[in-house]
Amino acid sequence: MSSVVVIGGGTGSYTLLRGLKKYTNDITAIVSMFDSGGSTGRLRDEFGYLPPGDVRRCILALTPEKSDTDVLRSLLDFRFKKGEGLNGHSMGNLLLTALKEITQDEILAIEKLSSLLGLKGRVLPVTLDNSHLCAELEDGTIVKGETNIDIPKHDPKLRIKKLFLEPNANALIDTIESIKNSDLVVIGPGDLYSSLIPNLLVRGISDAIKSSKAKKIYVCNVMTKYGETHGFKASDFLNELEKYLGKGTIQYMICNTEKGTNELLKIYAEENAFPVELDEQELINRVNLIKGDFINEGVLVRHDSRKLARTIIDLKQNE
Amino acid sequence: MSSVVVIGGGTGSYTLLRGLKKYTNDITAIVSMFDSGGSTGRLRDEFGYLPPGDVRRCILALTPEKSDTDVLRSLLDFRFKKGEGLNGHSMGNLLLTALKEITQDEILAIEKLSSLLGLKGRVLPVTLDNSHLCAELEDGTIVKGETNIDIPKHDPKLRIKKLFLEPNANALIDTIESIKNSDLVVIGPGDLYSSLIPNLLVRGISDAIKSSKAKKIYVCNVMTKYGETHGFKASDFLNELEKYLGKGTIQYMICNTEKGTNELLKIYAEENAFPVELDEQELINRVNLIKGDFINEGVLVRHDSRKLARTIIDLKQNE
Repeated sequence: MSSVVVIGGGTGSYTLLRGLKKYTNDITAIVSMFDSGGSTGRLRDEFGYLPPGDVRRCILALTPEKSDTDVLRSLLDFRFKKGEGLNGHSMGNLLLTALKEITQDEILAIEKLSSLLGLKGRVLPVTLDNSHLCAELEDGTIVKGETNIDIPKHDPKLRIKKLFLEPNANALIDTIESIKNSDLVVIGPGDLYSSLIPNLLVRGISDAIKSSKAKKIYVCNVMTKYGETHGFKASDFLNELEKYLGKGTIQYMICNTEKGTNELLKIYAEENAFPVELDEQELINRVNLIKGDFINEGVLVRHDSRKLARTIIDLKQNE
Repeated sequence: MSSVVVIGGGTGSYTLLRGLKKYTNDITAIVSMFDSGGSTGRLRDEFGYLPPGDVRRCILALTPEKSDTDVLRSLLDFRFKKGEGLNGHSMGNLLLTALKEITQDEILAIEKLSSLLGLKGRVLPVTLDNSHLCAELEDGTIVKGETNIDIPKHDPKLRIKKLFLEPNANALIDTIESIKNSDLVVIGPGDLYSSLIPNLLVRGISDAIKSSKAKKIYVCNVMTKYGETHGFKASDFLNELEKYLGKGTIQYMICNTEKGTNELLKIYAEENAFPVELDEQELINRVNLIKGDFINEGVLVRHDSRKLARTIIDLKQNE
């Protein structure tokens, strides 16, 4: 059974993990720990623990879809819609916070919740250090806090020149080991600046990826994101990743070629999000390009769990 | 296996249920639904559901003490000690509230949580009607809300003349059936006015108890409670119960004869709580008196789970 490490944290990881659990139990989700908004941000501020939101989402993705976990899964996914102080809180975030208070151990708390749900695989924070994500824009402005990068208050047309952590953070040893010992390391899918690169800023992660015997795969975004990757072509995404990871580290790049329906694209265009243009000539001799239809058109143009997972698993099995 | 119904809701029920589950799986905890204070009161006000606190406590008491429920039990029992809006909330109350929001069914929510924990027995609300407990004091003052009776703001020496519900509440059919079909109906232990009698005020409950083929047992309090049963002797407790239940309904009365240590009694005396005097001559020909040492002296003078449960189970088995 292939051993797969998925580096990310947000909705993209959720999508990929849900697909991967159909093919292997040996999955490690490495989760960015810099979220500072919403229910997660409030709990982070008030309890002093690392943000629980992305961990919760990855646990949910890796929970087997069996009837005996139905109730727990629905609880993990529940969000309060009223109640002073409760409104907006996710039950999964509250459960993780309670388990941290009970065990006084952030890793043990994740393990306890995972074992309760009979998880296929495991979820590991990229770091346990309490650090904040910061961005330097092309005009020199410094933006602090992941939520302010994800939902920008600055001019969204300004490009991000550099990302950094404040203070610096060190990788968890288990996280480094899992990267080193896996067959496949997948970066993405996910927001480039708010979900993927933050993991690479943590001391030890880039080196672990470089020195790992694993095949290294990057799943490129399907759509650009205003305020983060406005106007980016496929090669721009790779260029940015290589800034933090070194040239030549990424061996495979998965790019979607299927556009969404005009109707959906119109909705995205209203948010200034457009399909990522695949500039193949800029990728030649840099990566093995895997292109095809990887999307699942629902109400959004998103990666399809199963198509993506199948393609990644096949990379190992067809060697 | 004896079928036992325990009527109450508060700490007393918790104690008895923990003992009973060692002897039988056929236990129904009938829980008063008028709590209006603390985490429970806040959730009741904000979500419009019935108060979850006593249900949670009874579920916890009936959860088998096995290692595979350790994590869930510790979560059910966890209370947030910080966090704006979260501080003071019990995780069990939040889980019940979330399940009510998910299922839109108060009974189903209790059943789902119970089944998650592999409950020995079941927990039933006495009513699903949203009603508040009121008391008329001997000076004619009306006190509204269970929390104001439990923790009185009025002169605690004033006796309670009459309890009533506003508006009236009707018993749940399952609750009535469980009373009618049980071998043993146990009222108490628990606060007379804030935990026990409120159940008897619900339309249908007293009649169900009277017409049940079960042995009817009342567990008298060990200590008096300032503001509720100040100066009460054993017969006063019985007299009050019979006001709502009719004379002769209670067949067995369990009274503790063992006093706590002087040290503990001194602590209670500071709260104006004293051992309940057993005035046997007033109980003759009214009930079968079961007297003995039923207490467990820890930091409190409380009923002992096992001693109490054993005595009650034996009432059925020795017939």
